[in-house]
Amino acid sequence: MTYCVGMKLDRGLVFMSDTRTNAGVDNISVFKKMFQWEVPGERSITLMTAGNLATTQAVVSLLNERSIAAEDRGTLSIVEAPSMFQVAKLVGETLREVIADQTGQSGQTAERAFGASMILGGQVRGGETRMFHIYPEGNFVEASTDTPFFQIGEAKYGKPIIVRAYDPALRFEEAVKLLMVSFDSTLKANLSVGMPLDLHLYEADTLRHGLRRRIEPDDPFFAKVSSGWGEKLREAFDNLPDYSLD
Amino acid sequence: MTYCVGMKLDRGLVFMSDTRTNAGVDNISVFKKMFQWEVPGERSITLMTAGNLATTQAVVSLLNERSIAAEDRGTLSIVEAPSMFQVAKLVGETLREVIADQTGQSGQTAERAFGASMILGGQVRGGETRMFHIYPEGNFVEASTDTPFFQIGEAKYGKPIIVRAYDPALRFEEAVKLLMVSFDSTLKANLSVGMPLDLHLYEADTLRHGLRRRIEPDDPFFAKVSSGWGEKLREAFDNLPDYSLD
Repeated sequence: MTYCVGMKLDRGLVFMSDTRTNAGVDNISVFKKMFQWEVPGERSITLMTAGNLATTQAVVSLLNERSIAAEDRGTLSIVEAPSMFQVAKLVGETLREVIADQTGQSGQTAERAFGASMILGGQVRGGETRMFHIYPEGNFVEASTDTPFFQIGEAKYGKPIIVRAYDPALRFEEAVKLLMVSFDSTLKANLSVGMPLDLHLYEADTLRHGLRRRIEPDDPFFAKVSSGWGEKLREAFDNLPDYSLD
Repeated sequence: MTYCVGMKLDRGLVFMSDTRTNAGVDNISVFKKMFQWEVPGERSITLMTAGNLATTQAVVSLLNERSIAAEDRGTLSIVEAPSMFQVAKLVGETLREVIADQTGQSGQTAERAFGASMILGGQVRGGETRMFHIYPEGNFVEASTDTPFFQIGEAKYGKPIIVRAYDPALRFEEAVKLLMVSFDSTLKANLSVGMPLDLHLYEADTLRHGLRRRIEPDDPFFAKVSSGWGEKLREAFDNLPDYSLD
């Protein structure tokens, strides 16, 4: 499993992903699920992936190869496409291509086994910051003020706190705290989501990568959030009035 | 879908279930998922059900029929079985029997379509209060101090708060508040879980039903918990230290 969250704020975009992959509970590994492309001053793109690891790695490899040898192909790559919408289209097409290829090769009819979904966000010069949720079929939806964040993978445990505490005016410092609370609830509940976590904070209109950090299992701030949140939650709960049995 | 929680406390057992069933999002109905049997002064038994409604209703009907005409069958019914363990065995066997019957009749090989799972709790004179999670295969596990509560149905959204705030010493008034917070998070996230809610509070060693109440959608306490929890959660979140970007 996986847990990734992308959040659209007034100040920019926040991305957080875990790094655990597993084939059964007795076979776990650490793999990066967050990938970036940058043309400083022109674009910053972040992609987070969930689902079949062979599929998502193939997509990222293809996107990379094609961004290097794009002229030869006569098509634009994701570091050249003129808008975030076109970048999302390229990623979606590549994802669909890889899934079709793997499904065809194996003779499997179930596409589910090779499925993957992705969160893509960033900004291209001349456009706004945008964020997309890309489906295995290659199509995608965009984050809006009504739905300003996307989750992929094990989304349920960590959703209620985001729904309650999200605010587009959040500062990055608060947004990271919010995501850490959400990840902490998920990590505590699902063994197939695991530390370390990858973080990227893209500041709107900078058109270059922002703070990128790997949050290790012994991160002191994460530990403080994890233990502090239990206490605060308990206090919040105690402060609600009790039910009356009368 | 469904959401039911059974919780074992020092003071007794708490049961809460939703009442929504659905066949697709465009076909929803209200059905009770909590059932009780009582021999005052001798036993109180509560059963909550999730899964295929035809299966769970058939199980309850059979348990009822057999508790009326038990002598004729030469076997004990759930109002006669000498212990909660024997009651759980009876319920598990009946569940397995119904699933096997429906699977056989339809010629379907997939047992999943007719599957169901259940939470059973109560007390029989001479025994302790006990609670069981019963699986479609008819087997079951018992709640213990390590795992003092069971959830069936849409368990994920509402689990983190129970994990954080559960305490065996909770008073019933606090336990109901806790379950309402857990149900509120679930109701907000999954349309297939819906009001009204059914509640039963079994007080240990009374050997008769305790407070039983239906919590309607306009219940003023539930509304207070729902809105109050959002604020308290937000306050708790604000009181955590912010992440440092340095």
